[in-house]
Amino acid sequence: MNLGTYDNSRVLITGGLGFIGSNIAHKLVPLGARVTIVDSLAPLYGGHLANVAEIRDSITVHVGDCRDEALMRPLVREANVIFHLAAQVSYIDSANMPLDDLDINCRATLQLLELCRRERPDARVVFASSRLVLGKLLQHPVHEEHPTAPLSLYGIHKLAGEHYHRMYASLHGLRTAVVRLSNPYGERQQLKHSKYSLPGWFMRLAFEGKPITIFGDGQQLRDYIYATDVADAFLAVGRADIALGELFHCGFGQAVPFRQMAEAIVRVLKRGSIQFVPWPPNYERVETGDLSFDVSKLCRQTGWKPLISLEEGIERMWRYFEPRLSQYLSSQSG
Amino acid sequence: MNLGTYDNSRVLITGGLGFIGSNIAHKLVPLGARVTIVDSLAPLYGGHLANVAEIRDSITVHVGDCRDEALMRPLVREANVIFHLAAQVSYIDSANMPLDDLDINCRATLQLLELCRRERPDARVVFASSRLVLGKLLQHPVHEEHPTAPLSLYGIHKLAGEHYHRMYASLHGLRTAVVRLSNPYGERQQLKHSKYSLPGWFMRLAFEGKPITIFGDGQQLRDYIYATDVADAFLAVGRADIALGELFHCGFGQAVPFRQMAEAIVRVLKRGSIQFVPWPPNYERVETGDLSFDVSKLCRQTGWKPLISLEEGIERMWRYFEPRLSQYLSSQSG
Repeated sequence: MNLGTYDNSRVLITGGLGFIGSNIAHKLVPLGARVTIVDSLAPLYGGHLANVAEIRDSITVHVGDCRDEALMRPLVREANVIFHLAAQVSYIDSANMPLDDLDINCRATLQLLELCRRERPDARVVFASSRLVLGKLLQHPVHEEHPTAPLSLYGIHKLAGEHYHRMYASLHGLRTAVVRLSNPYGERQQLKHSKYSLPGWFMRLAFEGKPITIFGDGQQLRDYIYATDVADAFLAVGRADIALGELFHCGFGQAVPFRQMAEAIVRVLKRGSIQFVPWPPNYERVETGDLSFDVSKLCRQTGWKPLISLEEGIERMWRYFEPRLSQYLSSQSG
Repeated sequence: MNLGTYDNSRVLITGGLGFIGSNIAHKLVPLGARVTIVDSLAPLYGGHLANVAEIRDSITVHVGDCRDEALMRPLVREANVIFHLAAQVSYIDSANMPLDDLDINCRATLQLLELCRRERPDARVVFASSRLVLGKLLQHPVHEEHPTAPLSLYGIHKLAGEHYHRMYASLHGLRTAVVRLSNPYGERQQLKHSKYSLPGWFMRLAFEGKPITIFGDGQQLRDYIYATDVADAFLAVGRADIALGELFHCGFGQAVPFRQMAEAIVRVLKRGSIQFVPWPPNYERVETGDLSFDVSKLCRQTGWKPLISLEEGIERMWRYFEPRLSQYLSSQSG
């Protein structure tokens, strides 16, 4: 099912200094791909030059904004594959910066597809979306046909991004695909705040000997998928012979209680503790309910499968971060 | 079910010089409402001062862009009810001006809701959406739970607008509602081009003695809903005691073949002719398939019901336009 190869292929990664983007870059370099990264190193998010330290001399990095059409045009023109990861990634922040979220998550995405249509209509474009497009979850495991009724601006704009990719495939014949992620975590994720991807934040708290706070009894289910599995999924979708505009759910395909993730961190790090506190008022307005993804479509159509269990993922993550903590905990992101 | 009254109520209509907005204004003035209109008179669309000629002295008109926050803030602050009709309204144009469509249909809508949240959180906000959020139609009649997979940027951005209204209700408690229209037509619609709402264009062709062109056999089904019925629906939703963030399908609730609309025009005007031609290539990429709306939710929750059959609607429409054709066919929209 994997027809293409990345050897000598020109790959553009927007948001490539961030969590997922940098893990994709690390997979691509040994395969012989010529990797170009655009990343704004926006202080709120996870972009960090430390994320590409080991491959820095093998890739091209443009520190710039993917909304900058003049910057993007020549990069798109040269790309065989584009992984579009650059985004405002916090559903919490999206409520406080609605027009910025629109600008980054819709406008930049639409402009990128327009550039592809005009400059590089044969490029494969793979877009990173999120479980948060779904809203309240009605069934388990969640497959790609589940209704979409997002509860946040972040989710609304990611959903529009999905529709753009589907529509540019059907109307303009672009070779787009969407990878909708469950709960990604792991090496190279940001450790700065608790606004998204909590395993990183919890690992930091445990390291610093501070208690990890869990709302309710921590029995809400999540589908944690490790960084390298996510990167493999993007690579698989990027080279697979799939229909234009396909959407794939990407997760481990297994629901684990939220508290189990926190407990694994405390166990692996051998420090920290867990505190259970009541849910804050009104939290149900944004809580989606239990999640696990049906990932059979992605496995079947691309040959991908997830490899790293939660326990092993937390161990790998700590092995990555332990010797690098000072870099990731400093306020500098460059 | 109609709890409110419009007597002395302050009503803001964005796009109020356009087709639907002006028909709403005509309903409101005799009820004692204090109507304020914002309309940019953008040349592509249907805004026209002729649309409010009969009530011009009873309303306040601001010729301006609803994207202009400084213009909108004091108007929102004073409004009891806001009907948000201003939009880029052509799915065809949306493919050629993607970022403008985003700006008008998403950014302006989001900014309006933000203004409401800050300035007037108790206002009722009613948003006009479109059947084109649905994409390929899978069942008949189409109810509000039908999946949404729009085939155009116009549809994608209108769908984001719907989600904004639902989300601002659930997250911020705003008193929003969405009216999703099937195939509105009738008095005060634009006659300038064929990019949306074809009854107007067909009436013009027939009047000018030119043949009306129909793709295929004209048996595709549409759900035509007359201007005054649409206006009544907005008024009903604006004053009904409904849950926050509700979505309503608004149509006549009856599927009629596309050709029947054209034939009614030729019959009522007693001129013109119909020509059948093959579908243009690739047209199926944007053709949604047969449509009729299940309007039972709107009827049940607001007491509204549609009154004007297609035949009667075409007659009324011609009665309106015949003495005013020179105004509507001139290139001036002001």
